[in-house]
Amino acid sequence: MALESVDINCDLGEAFGRWRVGDTADQALMGLISSANIATGFHAGDPNLMDETVRLAVEHGVGIGAHPGYDDLQGFGRRKINGTPRELVNDIVYQVGALKEFVRRHGASLQHVKPHGALYMEMAVNSELAQLFVHYMRTANPNAYVLCMAGSATEIAAREAGQPVAREFYADRDYDESGSIVFTRDVGRPDPATIARKVLRACLEGKVTAVTGKDIEVPFETICFHSDTLGAFDIVRHMRDALVAEGIRISPLSDILK
Amino acid sequence: MALESVDINCDLGEAFGRWRVGDTADQALMGLISSANIATGFHAGDPNLMDETVRLAVEHGVGIGAHPGYDDLQGFGRRKINGTPRELVNDIVYQVGALKEFVRRHGASLQHVKPHGALYMEMAVNSELAQLFVHYMRTANPNAYVLCMAGSATEIAAREAGQPVAREFYADRDYDESGSIVFTRDVGRPDPATIARKVLRACLEGKVTAVTGKDIEVPFETICFHSDTLGAFDIVRHMRDALVAEGIRISPLSDILK
Amino acid sequence: MALESVDINCDLGEAFGRWRVGDTADQALMGLISSANIATGFHAGDPNLMDETVRLAVEHGVGIGAHPGYDDLQGFGRRKINGTPRELVNDIVYQVGALKEFVRRHGASLQHVKPHGALYMEMAVNSELAQLFVHYMRTANPNAYVLCMAGSATEIAAREAGQPVAREFYADRDYDESGSIVFTRDVGRPDPATIARKVLRACLEGKVTAVTGKDIEVPFETICFHSDTLGAFDIVRHMRDALVAEGIRISPLSDILK
Amino acid sequence: MALESVDINCDLGEAFGRWRVGDTADQALMGLISSANIATGFHAGDPNLMDETVRLAVEHGVGIGAHPGYDDLQGFGRRKINGTPRELVNDIVYQVGALKEFVRRHGASLQHVKPHGALYMEMAVNSELAQLFVHYMRTANPNAYVLCMAGSATEIAAREAGQPVAREFYADRDYDESGSIVFTRDVGRPDPATIARKVLRACLEGKVTAVTGKDIEVPFETICFHSDTLGAFDIVRHMRDALVAEGIRISPLSDILK
Repeated sequence: MALESVDINCDLGEAFGRWRVGDTADQALMGLISSANIATGFHAGDPNLMDETVRLAVEHGVGIGAHPGYDDLQGFGRRKINGTPRELVNDIVYQVGALKEFVRRHGASLQHVKPHGALYMEMAVNSELAQLFVHYMRTANPNAYVLCMAGSATEIAAREAGQPVAREFYADRDYDESGSIVFTRDVGRPDPATIARKVLRACLEGKVTAVTGKDIEVPFETICFHSDTLGAFDIVRHMRDALVAEGIRISPLSDILK
Repeated sequence: MALESVDINCDLGEAFGRWRVGDTADQALMGLISSANIATGFHAGDPNLMDETVRLAVEHGVGIGAHPGYDDLQGFGRRKINGTPRELVNDIVYQVGALKEFVRRHGASLQHVKPHGALYMEMAVNSELAQLFVHYMRTANPNAYVLCMAGSATEIAAREAGQPVAREFYADRDYDESGSIVFTRDVGRPDPATIARKVLRACLEGKVTAVTGKDIEVPFETICFHSDTLGAFDIVRHMRDALVAEGIRISPLSDILK
Repeated sequence: MALESVDINCDLGEAFGRWRVGDTADQALMGLISSANIATGFHAGDPNLMDETVRLAVEHGVGIGAHPGYDDLQGFGRRKINGTPRELVNDIVYQVGALKEFVRRHGASLQHVKPHGALYMEMAVNSELAQLFVHYMRTANPNAYVLCMAGSATEIAAREAGQPVAREFYADRDYDESGSIVFTRDVGRPDPATIARKVLRACLEGKVTAVTGKDIEVPFETICFHSDTLGAFDIVRHMRDALVAEGIRISPLSDILK
Repeated sequence: MALESVDINCDLGEAFGRWRVGDTADQALMGLISSANIATGFHAGDPNLMDETVRLAVEHGVGIGAHPGYDDLQGFGRRKINGTPRELVNDIVYQVGALKEFVRRHGASLQHVKPHGALYMEMAVNSELAQLFVHYMRTANPNAYVLCMAGSATEIAAREAGQPVAREFYADRDYDESGSIVFTRDVGRPDPATIARKVLRACLEGKVTAVTGKDIEVPFETICFHSDTLGAFDIVRHMRDALVAEGIRISPLSDILK
């Protein structure tokens, strides 16, 4: 029942040029996670940073994922843009391809794809988009994992098509009884010890306490936390220590799921 | 001495969204050329058009090339941007990777890479840039041709590194005695028959008459014309007919040079 | 009851760099209209074209309007972007200000503001956005007209605040019984004579026949047609001739409404 | 000989969306300076931030300047773009106009214009660009100051045309014997006390010691420091205290020079 090993993923490379959001210290986080979602230039990221972040990931043995978003630097990919599924998937193809070329340059291979922000949320509820995306993945990246919410349109489309899937547990977000995330504009500075306990229990028992107080089932293979949550470094360190102390191995998806 | 077969390349997919430059009728030209340089989104092109243009090229058996440019929609990639060689090559990696993903999606492979406009001219004279670019090609696209001017820094770097190279003959531009192109802001509407004769002679004798009246040697494997030159369709049709009448085959580089 | 004079407006300056949409021939249209909505760089337009279009408008005695849109070159401002009213109005302030500086440079003044495409439609139904926009207009452009649909949130907000308003009649679109436009992706190539009759009747009787066959009232001060409708030049010429033949003067809003 | 009052200017509003460069704390600096150069959206800045920064400046009685740059978010306006003088001035007109609309909205007026980064440097040596820019200023902003280097093409053009000018003293940069700035990629964390002494002497004696050890004359009306220099807040506080202790008033240009 309890997980023997689990993946920890977070978004990295979310800067561009001299521009930064928050206090991202990618290099520090890279040593603590097992998979990185690397921004691909539409909501964040630029070719120089993509090259550098891929290099860092390879150095640390971290699984590399493409993190494509809406074409929205101004809104950091958190504003929905009304494109057709075909347009949105073409945007994803473009971005994933761009990242893969840096990955190839560094002698590595693509482990997964995780859409960013509003695009991730849109795909979770838009079956046509999810299916078209998965169809592209089957054709061009048949062995790469699709990261998604359990029960989302994305997961359903991937399962149906036989595309590898990994479901996420959201370490720094609250759940409602349906297993969805409670949207909060500002998560403040969460307590690392509390998060570590929550994550550990999810790994051992497959359960989390929803905001209503009721326990719900949460199936997952990878733990997601946000590098722009205040105290991200401490959060991941505590979480990691708690898991390791319990004998749970932290490994990239490609090691766990194969 | 005379060429038995030759490639004809031109730039395609140089629109984006509802935006057009000139009267590009990609579909018409696609039936007459053997290699296409497909714009990759920085100076022109967008993910939807890249997908569509790659599909068309595959349908017509046209060799597919990536056509990366400066990040300059406003200036159509014809204004130099002072980036370092590392920055410029990262921009190229990004764009080439993006196109390759569409190529992969359509079950084809990348035949060549040709930088666009001011980036092509910059690389021709900037050895550090040319070498860094070729180093990337060796690593990630060892079998793809680099299209370049004969004698340029690009050609020299590619030869030294063992990267496949194809030199261009410029059908709709004038030459000076050094073998360089005479820059003209406006080439007007050139006479298709005159161009056809010039191209045919170049293929048969390896010579062209410079603007001074003197004949010079022009080594090349591919003929380049500009899809935005007035009367482009007639130009390429005349040229093609003249070559075929003389028994010269028009084939993609990948057929000629292997 | 019948209008003695009416304004004819259309969107101009909707290109940028070397990029064009459709066969816009701004110079030809400029001689036939009385007010121009000049694109301000977000969905179309660039500083060079804005300067040139303002110059042309001044030369032709055409009333100058700012035509701000969503920040969406790729989608030509026809894709809604989920910004807050405050963000969207700031985008409008920015664009209107930019255009006004070119207007000032050419010794003219701003006659009106008309949001573009999806932003125009959004404002028509979003009272909070409409009110914030009108509040800005009261502060910075108290004498400029707001162009809008009769009965829209935009009109209501402007009336309440005392901002000058001009309602549009859409020459090349069909109406439903509520007085709204029937959205059509492709209007084809409408018959200029038919449009001219429809416009003339609207000017003389204040009525138009809806798609259901029923006549409805249409109050307006300005006639809008789309410069990218096929045959736009013929449409406006016919329309103009029909109005003039009936003794209706074509004048900029600032002449009619003062 | 000694200055009775002097202006202190720095660049503010150099962020956009969630993006930041360095640790800019505009609000803190706003209380210590007398003039602000507000980024106008091409190299940094966005409509929301422009609105907010103008509001802050008005609140603090700080003179407001437009700070237009190259259209280069990626390179923060520090990479030269090869536009023609006409194109570059149109870019400036656009940006200055955009800022003025926010200024008008807040009931203030534009005090000055200072081009940013590579555009500032280009104008300093490009007389055609400087003259075209000044011609625009004469037409649309006859009372606004042009901030520039003493002896630059910008100053010469402004003097000839009768446009108000203010020359800058660069607090956190070194001088060579010609009175030019010694370009340094990294100024490190300069000592605030040293800078304060240097600035005070420049104000009292009109002199600075060049890197060669020789004293040179430095005429100026405004002191510039960079908000992204490490320790910027301490630097400006020390500098300000030193000036005030000596009886030199800190005032916006519009107060000093009128």
